[in-house]
Parts: sequence; structure tokens; C-alpha cells
Amino acid sequence: MKSVGVAILGFGTVGAGVADCLTRRRGVIASRAGVDVRLVRVADLDTETDRGVALPDGVLGADASAAIADPAVDIVVETIGGTGVAKKFMLDAIAAGKSVVTANKKLLAETGGELFAAAAAKGVDLYFGAAVGGGIPVIRAVRDALAANEFVSIAGILNGTCNYILTRMEKDGLRFDDALAEAQSHGFAEADPTLDIDGFDTAHKICILANLAFDRGTRLEDVEIKGIRGISVEEVAAAARAGGHVKLLGRAALGSDGRVEVTVRPEHVPAGALLGCVEGVYNAVEIESEPAGKTVYVGKGAGRNPTASTVAADVCEIARNIARGVVRNV
Amino acid sequence: MKSVGVAILGFGTVGAGVADCLTRRRGVIASRAGVDVRLVRVADLDTETDRGVALPDGVLGADASAAIADPAVDIVVETIGGTGVAKKFMLDAIAAGKSVVTANKKLLAETGGELFAAAAAKGVDLYFGAAVGGGIPVIRAVRDALAANEFVSIAGILNGTCNYILTRMEKDGLRFDDALAEAQSHGFAEADPTLDIDGFDTAHKICILANLAFDRGTRLEDVEIKGIRGISVEEVAAAARAGGHVKLLGRAALGSDGRVEVTVRPEHVPAGALLGCVEGVYNAVEIESEPAGKTVYVGKGAGRNPTASTVAADVCEIARNIARGVVRNV
Repeated sequence: MKSVGVAILGFGTVGAGVADCLTRRRGVIASRAGVDVRLVRVADLDTETDRGVALPDGVLGADASAAIADPAVDIVVETIGGTGVAKKFMLDAIAAGKSVVTANKKLLAETGGELFAAAAAKGVDLYFGAAVGGGIPVIRAVRDALAANEFVSIAGILNGTCNYILTRMEKDGLRFDDALAEAQSHGFAEADPTLDIDGFDTAHKICILANLAFDRGTRLEDVEIKGIRGISVEEVAAAARAGGHVKLLGRAALGSDGRVEVTVRPEHVPAGALLGCVEGVYNAVEIESEPAGKTVYVGKGAGRNPTASTVAADVCEIARNIARGVVRNV
Repeated sequence: MKSVGVAILGFGTVGAGVADCLTRRRGVIASRAGVDVRLVRVADLDTETDRGVALPDGVLGADASAAIADPAVDIVVETIGGTGVAKKFMLDAIAAGKSVVTANKKLLAETGGELFAAAAAKGVDLYFGAAVGGGIPVIRAVRDALAANEFVSIAGILNGTCNYILTRMEKDGLRFDDALAEAQSHGFAEADPTLDIDGFDTAHKICILANLAFDRGTRLEDVEIKGIRGISVEEVAAAARAGGHVKLLGRAALGSDGRVEVTVRPEHVPAGALLGCVEGVYNAVEIESEPAGKTVYVGKGAGRNPTASTVAADVCEIARNIARGVVRNV
């Protein structure tokens, strides 16, 4: 069986989850993918903190550049986050002829074009399945499962923190501030919740989906964004009394004029609509396309394990490509 | 751009849908997949009936064997159905070194092992994404998106006719016989509805999913099957009064003893569960796996267009493999 080497840059929550998944499920992955996916390098400035993941001796180190340059490394997984060194290391990896996997939605939404161009020029893969929807394979659905479809619209609950807050307001009558404080105390809302509740995180994700489906070069500044900050418990209750639900939706739709309109805003989802049934930290994406019709994808949109699942799936697919001798640049 | 040739065997509902999709969306497919997918042959004994699909001159013929043998054909799509000539032609195509796509769940559930062995021995692809869930990419989810996951359970609404009947009984108080007659008059229940309402169609599909996820060689005769024939409107109403729903579920679950139990039976889905929100002819599959957690996939489970979407996606993936020069048998 062929063997493919992986380096993970960043040993935080997601990096540790990916390392755990790849090492503990190495046998299962090998039997399904037909290739031995070996974790050979993990790079993080902090090499001391115990992440609860048993790495083989010599795998963990502080030098990301050395990990990228290691000839045993075929695939580089970026889990550092942000748009600074993460971008530099991804470009370095691509330049070194390594394929790259990332879940960095902010980086992709803001400067994805440059990265994709570099990967295409070098003939390597750049996968980003976990950048939208965490454990939900929605990127894969748009790219592969609906490859022969024409897209009409995409609407998604793409931020678990917002959906948790709205669900608590609807089900238990909490006020916005109290629901937010609770989400923060549970650890799934950041101390600075702006990115979530003001809709920017949702905007990053719907922007990535819009570009994948419609290929019109939609930029973040083209997205009309309204978050859920200060939404009243009365508004949520009124929607519920009518059998519906208030949800923060990212939406991309092809207009009759051929333009793609991308919005983020709280919407009243009517009774009986599937997106209205999606509660708490779950995310969901509803896609209207032809000839498939309506398809909906639901799952946990964030967190160590769901994200690790999707990152690992990307790693497996690239590894299988390498093992099967895919000729690149065709 | 490389070009890959496709033959469709059978020009019935699904065959015509696939032909329509591949010809009308040839440009979109080429731009996304990076390969020109050309429909070069359609074979059906009836070459006269108008299916409303414009085929280029010389594509339609009555001779399936000639279509398989055509050197311009790389991929053979089987849409004949049944387990007779469909199986023979698939084995012929594999023997001729052609990759095969099928949506024939009955054939796969009953004698899939023989077909997969033949394809593996010859080093060709055998894809069957539309055999379960029609337009829902659930086969792809289990195989690719959850490639690094360990599966815990799969539960699905896998037959649109049954779900339509149960929804009409719940929402409008119809009796079973009346709801069935209505489904038949709408054309989505067969004149002989046994395969649907007695649970065999669901059993075929959950059997395929169970083998893909758990790989334990589950046979159709291992599945405990109970359909919805004669279910009372009172039972459906009682579940609804409790906020829940009666749904015909195919279920495969890993027991504590390591055995995989596969069942088909009407179950009471409790209030708040997503599967309960799936109405009418829609299908849905809920997968519990680690590390992804719960993911759910919803869409139209049958019909010309949803099925064509998934068959065409399989064709696109194989075409891309061929164009990218995938080395087989690794």
C-alpha cells in the first residue's frame, strides 16, 4: 500500500482534532482509501501544552517551515487561522509542491483568489471543505454531488452561535443579551462576539458558497450584511406564534437579471420549512438547483470534532489522488 | 481539453433524464470538471418514441452490445433496471474495460458483490450514487465526506411513496387505502405497490448503506422488514397529538456486541427530531458517526430529474478521473 505524509500547522483545537482523527483512525482510513495516511509532522510554537493527543516521537516541533520542507510531507494542513502567517505558510507549501487543506474561511473569503491561482499554477490541490458548515459536507455537495447542476439559490444557517441564541430566545423566552451571555459561558461564543452576531462569519461562508456555485467573483464587500444583535424577544415570539422561526440566513440567489445577490440577515422562516426545524448549534444549508431540485444538508457547524471530520476527509481525498497517480495540471 | 465518451443503456425515464442533463449542461460540466463529457451512444429497443430529448444524429440505436463495444465509449450508464439484461450488460461493459454507473438498487442489493468483484478485477470504476436517495448525495457522504469517520448508526426515510402516504394520513386524515390510491393516481406509486409499501425498496437501500458504512456483508435476507400496509389513521394521529410523526425508517446500527442490526419498520419519530420534519415525497438520511456527530441529508428520493443529477455527478467524477490520468488498480 502506498503511503502519503501529512503535516499539520497549528496544534490548537482544530489541529489537535485532526491529529487525533488521523492517528486513531489510520487503519480505517487505509482500508477505505487504499492508502496509508501518515501524520509525520505537527508544527506549533507551543510544544509543551498537553492536547490529549498521543503523537509519535519526533512528530511535534516548533518549526512550520521545516515541516513544509520535509520531503516526507505531501499534504500540509493549515489550522493556524487568521490571515497573516497562515497565508504565508500556505503559499510556501504550494510553492514547495505540497497540496494544502484549510478551514480558514476568513482567509479564503478575503484573499482566496490569490491562493487558488498559486495552487493552480503549481498543479497542487487546495481543499477547504471545513471552511463552511464544519462537519456538514456542503462544499463537497456543491462541488461534486451537484457537479452537473445549475444553481438557483443557496440559503443557510451558517453560524451556530447565532442559531443557539435564537433557539434559546424562541424556546425559553430569553432576551438576546442573556442568551448571548449563556453562549459565551458555554464557550461557543467568543468574548468578542462581533464576528458571529453581526453576521460577518455568516458572510464569509455564504461568500465562499456563492463563488463555488455561481462563479461570479463575489467579494465580501458585495454582501449586504445585517446580524442579530439586539433582536427582540417579541419579534422571535411573534414568528413562533405563526408557527415559524427567526433564523439568521446567509443567502445567495441568481436574479432574473443574471446577477447573483448575496445577503446575510435575520429572516422569518415559515412553518413547515426544514430550515426552521434546525435548532441550537446545528447548521443547515438548503440548495435549490436543477435537475436535483431542493437538497438540504444539516450538521454541527463548528467545533473540534466536526471540523476534524471534514478536514480529514479532504486529506483522504488528496491522499487517494496522490496514491492513484493523478496527473496534475490537466 | 480531454474528452470522455458516455453510453446510456435504456432510454426510459431515468435514461432520458441523464441524456438531457449531459447534453444540455455539457458546457457547465466541462468548465467545472475540466473534461468534455460527450454523450456518444444511447441504446434502447424502442428507438421511435419521443422522449423530449434532442440527441445528436446517430447517437440513438437499438444495440446495447454495440454501444458497449464502441471504442469512443469510456463510461457505460445502466438505466435499464431489473436484474436480467441489466446485469449482463454491466458485466459485459466491465469486461470491455469500461467504467459503469448505475442506479439499480435491487441489482446491487441482491448481487452487488459479483459486480464489484468484476470491476475491481478489471480495474474500472463502478459508481451507484443514485441507488439510494435519488437526488440526495448520501452514498457520496458515506464514502467520501465521512471517509475518516467511524459509523454508529444510519436511519433514513428512503421511500417517497410511503412518506407521501404517511404525510397525507397525518396532515389530512386520509385512510391508508385512500392515500395509496391517491399516490397511484399521481403516478409515483406503482400499480403493484408491494415493493414500496411492504418495505422492500427501503430494505434494498438501507442494505446498500449498511454495507458501505459498516462493511459487514449484510444481505437482504438479514434485514428485518415491516412495511406500512394497513397502518391505521388512529396510530398516525396519536403520534401527531404527541408532537411526533410515524415514519417508515430503514435503520442500520452497530450494536454493543459488534453486530450490525438492519431493520425496516414504521417508527414513532419524536417531536423536534429532524426526520419528523421531512414531508411528502422527500427522503432524508440521518447519520451518526465519529468525529462528525450527527449529519442529515434531505432531498427528492426518486424521479427523473433528481436521479439524473446524481447519475450525472457519478459520470462527471469518473470522467475527471479518466482525464486526470488516474492509475487504476492501486
